[in-house]
Amino acid sequence: MDGLIMDWDLTIPRILDRARKVFPHNEVVSNLPEGRHSYTWAEFYGRVVRLMNVLRKLGVKRGDRVATFAWNHYRHLELYFAIPCCGAILHTLNLRLFPEQLQYIVNHAEDSMIFVDDNLLRPIEAMAGKFESVKQYVVMGPATDLPETTLAPAANYETLMAEASDVENFPEIGEREACGLCYTSGTTGNPKGVLYSHRGTFIHTMMVGMTDVLGLSERDVMMPVVPMFHANAWGNPYICAMIGARLIFAGSDVQPENLVRLIEQEQVTIALGVPTIWNGLLQYLRKEGGDISSLRAMLVGGSAVPRAMIEAFLQEFGVPIMQGWGMTEMSPLGAVSRITRKMEDWPVAKQIDTMAKQGVMPPCVEMKIVDDDGTEQPWDGQAVGELLVRGPAVASAYYNNPEDSAAFTDDGWFHTGDVASIDQNAVLQITDRTKDLIKSGGEWISSVAMESAIMACPGVLEAAVVARPDEKWDERPLAFVVRAAEGDPIQPQAIIAALARSFAKWQLPATEDIRFIEEIPKTAVGKFDKKVLRAQLA
Amino acid sequence: MDGLIMDWDLTIPRILDRARKVFPHNEVVSNLPEGRHSYTWAEFYGRVVRLMNVLRKLGVKRGDRVATFAWNHYRHLELYFAIPCCGAILHTLNLRLFPEQLQYIVNHAEDSMIFVDDNLLRPIEAMAGKFESVKQYVVMGPATDLPETTLAPAANYETLMAEASDVENFPEIGEREACGLCYTSGTTGNPKGVLYSHRGTFIHTMMVGMTDVLGLSERDVMMPVVPMFHANAWGNPYICAMIGARLIFAGSDVQPENLVRLIEQEQVTIALGVPTIWNGLLQYLRKEGGDISSLRAMLVGGSAVPRAMIEAFLQEFGVPIMQGWGMTEMSPLGAVSRITRKMEDWPVAKQIDTMAKQGVMPPCVEMKIVDDDGTEQPWDGQAVGELLVRGPAVASAYYNNPEDSAAFTDDGWFHTGDVASIDQNAVLQITDRTKDLIKSGGEWISSVAMESAIMACPGVLEAAVVARPDEKWDERPLAFVVRAAEGDPIQPQAIIAALARSFAKWQLPATEDIRFIEEIPKTAVGKFDKKVLRAQLA
Repeated sequence: MDGLIMDWDLTIPRILDRARKVFPHNEVVSNLPEGRHSYTWAEFYGRVVRLMNVLRKLGVKRGDRVATFAWNHYRHLELYFAIPCCGAILHTLNLRLFPEQLQYIVNHAEDSMIFVDDNLLRPIEAMAGKFESVKQYVVMGPATDLPETTLAPAANYETLMAEASDVENFPEIGEREACGLCYTSGTTGNPKGVLYSHRGTFIHTMMVGMTDVLGLSERDVMMPVVPMFHANAWGNPYICAMIGARLIFAGSDVQPENLVRLIEQEQVTIALGVPTIWNGLLQYLRKEGGDISSLRAMLVGGSAVPRAMIEAFLQEFGVPIMQGWGMTEMSPLGAVSRITRKMEDWPVAKQIDTMAKQGVMPPCVEMKIVDDDGTEQPWDGQAVGELLVRGPAVASAYYNNPEDSAAFTDDGWFHTGDVASIDQNAVLQITDRTKDLIKSGGEWISSVAMESAIMACPGVLEAAVVARPDEKWDERPLAFVVRAAEGDPIQPQAIIAALARSFAKWQLPATEDIRFIEEIPKTAVGKFDKKVLRAQLA
Repeated sequence: MDGLIMDWDLTIPRILDRARKVFPHNEVVSNLPEGRHSYTWAEFYGRVVRLMNVLRKLGVKRGDRVATFAWNHYRHLELYFAIPCCGAILHTLNLRLFPEQLQYIVNHAEDSMIFVDDNLLRPIEAMAGKFESVKQYVVMGPATDLPETTLAPAANYETLMAEASDVENFPEIGEREACGLCYTSGTTGNPKGVLYSHRGTFIHTMMVGMTDVLGLSERDVMMPVVPMFHANAWGNPYICAMIGARLIFAGSDVQPENLVRLIEQEQVTIALGVPTIWNGLLQYLRKEGGDISSLRAMLVGGSAVPRAMIEAFLQEFGVPIMQGWGMTEMSPLGAVSRITRKMEDWPVAKQIDTMAKQGVMPPCVEMKIVDDDGTEQPWDGQAVGELLVRGPAVASAYYNNPEDSAAFTDDGWFHTGDVASIDQNAVLQITDRTKDLIKSGGEWISSVAMESAIMACPGVLEAAVVARPDEKWDERPLAFVVRAAEGDPIQPQAIIAALARSFAKWQLPATEDIRFIEEIPKTAVGKFDKKVLRAQLA
């Protein structure tokens, strides 16, 4: 027997409608090269209505992929809503990918249109000849004239907006229709697309807004430094609209100096981004000073957060770091580290240990860990296995890519490729990527744990550990280390001595397997690019 | 084009599974006549598995209505999960209804089974002869023997549990299947049933857990004094399981003395109930003292919360009251009063004014107010109209009752019958029930506003205002007033003088229209029963 509850689809237009009705006076602030821009959710709503009419006039149809190549700012936010509200699909292109990858992605997605920032024209112009499906470019910026460009046909965003009708026209949209598309580069093969649904995005938005997830409130001033081209900016544009939080965009300038200035001026209460950003901020604050006391928390994710960084922000600046773990395939949030009631009486050091793990799955994320035979492993903090996830915001396949969709099996779980343990308190700890484990003499060494331990050493800025082929042991750990600028240069012996406190003797790298380099190569999304390091080895 | 996100149904078994996996050690505490009972969510899970096997053994099939007639305690909580997890429908019977209403409800719902507390046997025995569909009674209590009863066939809950299999057997359940049934008595006609769906209940649960709604956390100690037979106890059993909050049941003793003792002993952080309960608590605290400083908030709903009570708790005890407004038809939450960023700088008196209104709609609740022609009215705090609501947890019809479902029109909105205004900050204020407005000389007088003003007078405990038929003016306000025990008895002149500060002269009741009585008659759910007052007038 079915319940007699209304059919009310969980869709993005509902979020937009709420923002303009419930929080019309709350503001969205963008920090742009031409200056600070600020408007209310009510004004934002009016712009989205116009933009929907622009899209329709340009010929956008239901299901079309409309791409963006842009920094974090209000025009990008307008596209986040107008495209799905038209029934089309917002496809955020990653600014940091290599041209070959971008060409592949645009052609694979069959994007019909690209909205591009005026200060990002050159890379798109260089690739445009290879784009097979793009019929229209729209250039975003303050100018009302179209800047000089080889892109064709090209139009100016603000000109189109000025000419557009302001008549509201919202089509009916079903909650299972697609609203967004984001490619994940992975470490092998071509990038793979995740096609989000309105329903998944809506549920993810509610989940992020729950007290024990991000605990976001209308009173928050949120600054997502995570780029809007990363998995829906971790859902932040949608949750800010749903709950009316004040939203601050940092624009293209994510240098520590600018971030500290924005935190001070806007009294930011919660900021989000990858560890690299916050590591830079930490060094800057130590050297130059700055007031970040308005922050109630920083959500850090995208790659493992070094324990030393969590400790430093907490003890030097009184700002707790919440570690967020997720995947593009998960919309993206999968876990958030936090101190539960049970942990309140723990010593601070033990609490920081917990915050350095990936954390607890929010409602609507289910997890299990399985061994090679698929047998479920206990949640005892000891057993490790591949992490499997499922939920109403988790992908069931890659977009138009059956050959790469093996991770989505018939069992209804997404096989993440991460190796993890889960403890009695449901705290997830990613031990490694399956392929990043080091197998030495038949036993495993966690590269992630070793990196974290090395990065906790004074005098170390960053470290990446990979497997070095070894005749005798099959594989041995090799550490690439970036020294911090200040003080006496740290030596390999000091690192090995530090590692010896938490690793078995056979796991320790040899002195010559600690190599000092200038910088760890990073992928387009800011993660350590171990492919490049391995290539240097070979 | 559909998104490629997993089909993961939003169902109650998912909430149960989360409670046992993520919060196995967190506890559920019941305050029972035989003493304090406490167990973990993990133990709770084991009991629900057994109870599901009990239900199946007794012949419960998918879609069957299984009724409960019980106080707030852990066995009732087990039924809250086991019945819907079997695919059957939890039908909570209101202990405070008149026998004729209960008979009507049980027969209309065609309940196949009733689970009844051992200390509530007598009323059910008195009615059982009239029940047409009930094939089994199960008596709940600490005894392992069946108490003496005329109910037949009857079994003992704990005996059935001891004999039951502990093998897990969860059927697949679709999110649109029914999970619960609750009748709302209304003020006219027979009670009407609302048939909840798994999906609606799941979404309502997430909504309640959002920061700006109840802001519930795993760290909370929640005591729902609202009975479990009221609209899913306002969703609290499900949200506590989803987020792992510590849940405290007060059992059948909701006297102030017991509540204060529980708040102190269990360090309750948030308590929920109707105004009458908290008014009693306030009088008790003033007279006897007591420590309620562990409370971070009290959620008060079910009927309008007098401003004076909000002020008293805040200023005498430092405990903020959040007013919750809802309806059985809304699962039930519709609005929560709270202080937004914009209101932070307001004087306290103005903040309390806001807290005395019904508050802001949470995500997934849409509202509008319309005039008699159905024209939408502005959100300016001035315009009033009938309140229409819709959302994924709002009913679309009454259960097996097309003739009474006129409030659910083709326009997709539920017509609440409440008259309301909504202001620029999206704060809802219920002016009156349509039928509770007083029309005097062609102009309206709000009975709710007048009640609230009278209850703010020192020396007044409670007041209810109804329309008295009047030859000249058609209707005039008539106030029934209960005097507070202490001090000199308040006189009609003092009340009229107080009303004159906020009502026009023509709106004021005459001296003889202020009548002092011992107690305001209440409905089964604790609201002022104006039907009875009107009957006394006639």
